[in-house]
Amino acid sequence: MKVLVVGANGQIGKHLVSFIQDSDHLEAKAMIRNQEQASFFEDLGAETAVVDLEQDIDTIAKAAEGVDAVVFTAGSGPHTGKDKTIMVDLDGAVKTIEAAKTAGVKRFVMISSFDTTREAIQEAPSSFAPYVAAKHYADEWLKGTDLDYTIIHPGLLTNDEGKGQVEAAVKVERGEVPREDVARVIAATLENDSTIGKEFQLVTGTTPVKDAVDSL
Amino acid sequence: MKVLVVGANGQIGKHLVSFIQDSDHLEAKAMIRNQEQASFFEDLGAETAVVDLEQDIDTIAKAAEGVDAVVFTAGSGPHTGKDKTIMVDLDGAVKTIEAAKTAGVKRFVMISSFDTTREAIQEAPSSFAPYVAAKHYADEWLKGTDLDYTIIHPGLLTNDEGKGQVEAAVKVERGEVPREDVARVIAATLENDSTIGKEFQLVTGTTPVKDAVDSL
Repeated sequence: MKVLVVGANGQIGKHLVSFIQDSDHLEAKAMIRNQEQASFFEDLGAETAVVDLEQDIDTIAKAAEGVDAVVFTAGSGPHTGKDKTIMVDLDGAVKTIEAAKTAGVKRFVMISSFDTTREAIQEAPSSFAPYVAAKHYADEWLKGTDLDYTIIHPGLLTNDEGKGQVEAAVKVERGEVPREDVARVIAATLENDSTIGKEFQLVTGTTPVKDAVDSL
Repeated sequence: MKVLVVGANGQIGKHLVSFIQDSDHLEAKAMIRNQEQASFFEDLGAETAVVDLEQDIDTIAKAAEGVDAVVFTAGSGPHTGKDKTIMVDLDGAVKTIEAAKTAGVKRFVMISSFDTTREAIQEAPSSFAPYVAAKHYADEWLKGTDLDYTIIHPGLLTNDEGKGQVEAAVKVERGEVPREDVARVIAATLENDSTIGKEFQLVTGTTPVKDAVDSL
């Protein structure tokens, strides 16, 4: 199963490509913004495609041609300019979704934010609300398609070393989760079709990743 | 026919409430952000409702209770902070749409931007693209509902005195249009149910407003 990782050069993305390349069933194609980012992925034996998320749907679709799944883990992050919030977190995500459809790729895994409900937009501090709103509309767009989607809602991301144990469910207590463990969960999600059509929150915990994903 | 004007204190909104109050068939309810803005509308004999678009759907829905149509003409404008672009132009619009549904109001007139297609987002200068994207997603949200919508795409807005003559069609040459004439077109749209389910671009022209709207 070949997986296009959109946002591969991000911290979750790099862990993910690494786990994918280690897996027997998966291989990665890393979508990166410029050629200088390629060597990290080439060293892992992964294919690369140089595409900026601000390019058009057809350009993104070319990168998605021939893959079996797309993972969207690009993000401007909550602290970039709000123009990037709408152009990357919302419009970049929607263009990637449409590109998957154009390329005939059915499987789509979205890395969202912990809580992207209407209530969460309303309750968010005003500096954070635009990011939550962008992620909300991207998630809603995906749910309106007939793609085989899974939406993962990680808690507060840390750079701690992953411990391979998490808590994953529709609703969990707010908490932290290492980016490395988010990447592990994405890889496990790709290998488990019973996650299709589901969305779940994810924090660090005590259940091995595979068991946590299998029990969703 | 009672019309909730969302964004009544904007320049189009003020003209619109005035035209509505002059009409034999329409009456306005002006949705405004604070009580200090009320006197202008009270002087026109219009009802007011004090609601901030950043409040929740139920609060907006209360303002929409008992009206027959909602007009969304609020806008952060293309030059406010991009956080307002997503929170007002997109999320404020979507909340107003959802509020209309909650209140059981079927008729909805959206004041959009001249070109909110996918291509327009892609071609817009980077400072303007987030605004176009926000309007795009708001329009898409509205088209996904079963409301009796009309989407008006005005050209470059000016404060020139309206001349009551416009050009309106699915596609027209890019041009200017006085805010006063946009307001006239909104009022004419509210009085013509054959505009339901349609969207059109609007610039200044040579056809009297009523004829231009009737020929859509």
